[in-house]
Amino acid sequence: MAEQRTHPPVEAIRILPGSGIEIIDQTLLPAAERYLLIDDVADLCEAIRTLRIRGAPLLGIAGAGGVAIAATREPSMAAIERAAATICATRPTAVDLGAGVDRALQRARSTDESERAAVLWELAAAMLRDQLAADRAIGAYGAGLPGVERAVLTHCNTGALATGGLGTALAVVITAWEQGRIERCYATETRPLLQGARLTAWELKELGIPVTLLPDTAAASLIASGAVGAVVTGADRIAANGDTANKVGTYGLAAVAARHGVPFYIAAPTTTIDPGCAGGGGIPIEFRAAEEVGGFAGQRWAPRGIDAYNPAFDVTPAGLIAAIVTERGVVRPPFAEGLAAVCSGS
Amino acid sequence: MAEQRTHPPVEAIRILPGSGIEIIDQTLLPAAERYLLIDDVADLCEAIRTLRIRGAPLLGIAGAGGVAIAATREPSMAAIERAAATICATRPTAVDLGAGVDRALQRARSTDESERAAVLWELAAAMLRDQLAADRAIGAYGAGLPGVERAVLTHCNTGALATGGLGTALAVVITAWEQGRIERCYATETRPLLQGARLTAWELKELGIPVTLLPDTAAASLIASGAVGAVVTGADRIAANGDTANKVGTYGLAAVAARHGVPFYIAAPTTTIDPGCAGGGGIPIEFRAAEEVGGFAGQRWAPRGIDAYNPAFDVTPAGLIAAIVTERGVVRPPFAEGLAAVCSGS
Repeated sequence: MAEQRTHPPVEAIRILPGSGIEIIDQTLLPAAERYLLIDDVADLCEAIRTLRIRGAPLLGIAGAGGVAIAATREPSMAAIERAAATICATRPTAVDLGAGVDRALQRARSTDESERAAVLWELAAAMLRDQLAADRAIGAYGAGLPGVERAVLTHCNTGALATGGLGTALAVVITAWEQGRIERCYATETRPLLQGARLTAWELKELGIPVTLLPDTAAASLIASGAVGAVVTGADRIAANGDTANKVGTYGLAAVAARHGVPFYIAAPTTTIDPGCAGGGGIPIEFRAAEEVGGFAGQRWAPRGIDAYNPAFDVTPAGLIAAIVTERGVVRPPFAEGLAAVCSGS
Repeated sequence: MAEQRTHPPVEAIRILPGSGIEIIDQTLLPAAERYLLIDDVADLCEAIRTLRIRGAPLLGIAGAGGVAIAATREPSMAAIERAAATICATRPTAVDLGAGVDRALQRARSTDESERAAVLWELAAAMLRDQLAADRAIGAYGAGLPGVERAVLTHCNTGALATGGLGTALAVVITAWEQGRIERCYATETRPLLQGARLTAWELKELGIPVTLLPDTAAASLIASGAVGAVVTGADRIAANGDTANKVGTYGLAAVAARHGVPFYIAAPTTTIDPGCAGGGGIPIEFRAAEEVGGFAGQRWAPRGIDAYNPAFDVTPAGLIAAIVTERGVVRPPFAEGLAAVCSGS
């Protein structure tokens, strides 16, 4: 049994009150571990758009940090609100980014101009501390779910690099590993941006948890082989009825898991739940540049000048989800009531 | 309406009687169009293993060509049989390779040693001519199937580069395009070897057929969006009951298509049917090197030293297949009787 972690396996973000935020540049991993000091809202927006920093919960913390950066430069509410709107516009699907920015805005509005910057820096730091506690709880709730003990298949990256804490789906894996309940984690490559191959495989290797990487195309075959006990992913936005937007490819995994009676779980903090969104049809889906398809990092495989279909997310209908694991407990279908309860903190 | 093609859009293989076979090196496409002259069985085996030449029907022709090469060097049956066994061992899943080699072996056995090489070269050339006719027929039968007119989603490469003729699933697309019935084809990238991004996108672009490339992860989202009228793929081996082995990823597409009522069709010549194989469980699945996962063509994204799950094929159960399109007509479920009929030529 491994020692229980009280700190994140990698520091995805550092809050430097009064100075800025430091982020590990996720586009360079695993080849290089390079931190960027961000002390400007425009630089933060660039980093978010290009996925130097990514992961729904982590974006929430970065969003609040961005508001703190703005308040440090110019503490008027007009300037802070302009910066907040710019940050929110970078990525439309993840609810955490907007929620983190809104939380900072509310705090700014209720604070004297002279103290705004300091209060916002403390908020961002507190959000990061809270995330580690929330992730720890998600891991503990998720590790006990049926099927997890047989081996987890996960998609995209949901580790420390996605939350700033232990992760969401990866917190489930890490906790089950710490408890000696699993021997291995299966991770998809996650085209087009390969967060599974680059980030999840790297985090698991750093943690000493055996990982088997597979092409996204091989997931159905792996599930059919009986090797997977549970599929666990994170989420970018959970609608009030349980429909869940997550990294593109999640829906296909959930559909195949259902055919084979393999439970499909979502692991996400309650900040990812959007009570204002009734169902999956109301979740805005970000489409990204055609260049991300048919190549990677400057290497081009496909002929140039062809069209691409490149949504960053897809929506898994609630009916395919066996449970949603939050830091406040496990929500089971039908989800509406349970999601409302964990959102209200009851 | 485009002109109907009477020749393949690209020459994947050239039979040079007495000299060898010339193949386009598919590992270099689309960056370079380079032909390799192969006049040695060991070189042919290397080209097959490394996928310089690939595609179930094309491998059948190449296999027969390989036996002709062997007979040209040394026309004794002992030498020819040794060469045949070596060729067959290169790839276990595609039935066409072994069938093409066996056909050549039988012809060799019934021919005087002095005429063997000439007869085998003529056989390989005839197989290539026959493939174009078979592909033309597959295209004609398939283009009329329900849903094709709304837009086809295809996987891997099933064009001229896969058969030496017009292709199988791509013959359906090409024919529907020639008939003015479709405006676009959707093609998956097809990790890990990216045959969709490299080969299918290139063939369709060369043919002037608009193609939209998508990450394998985005296929479920595309199908859910309603944009796909039919999913059409090739096959590497069709069992007697209709269970079909094809490029890994096919099963997941078929499962998602079924959820959305989108017909899933297999397009393949009757040489791909294996009456000796009762069901999918009897199809040997080739597993390939871990290095193909987590990187491509010398570029590495994943950390080194981790495990990989890398089956080249998966099996789609017959229950998910709406029809199997052969050059002798369309076979519908339950497949056993219809497949037996097209195999016997009745």
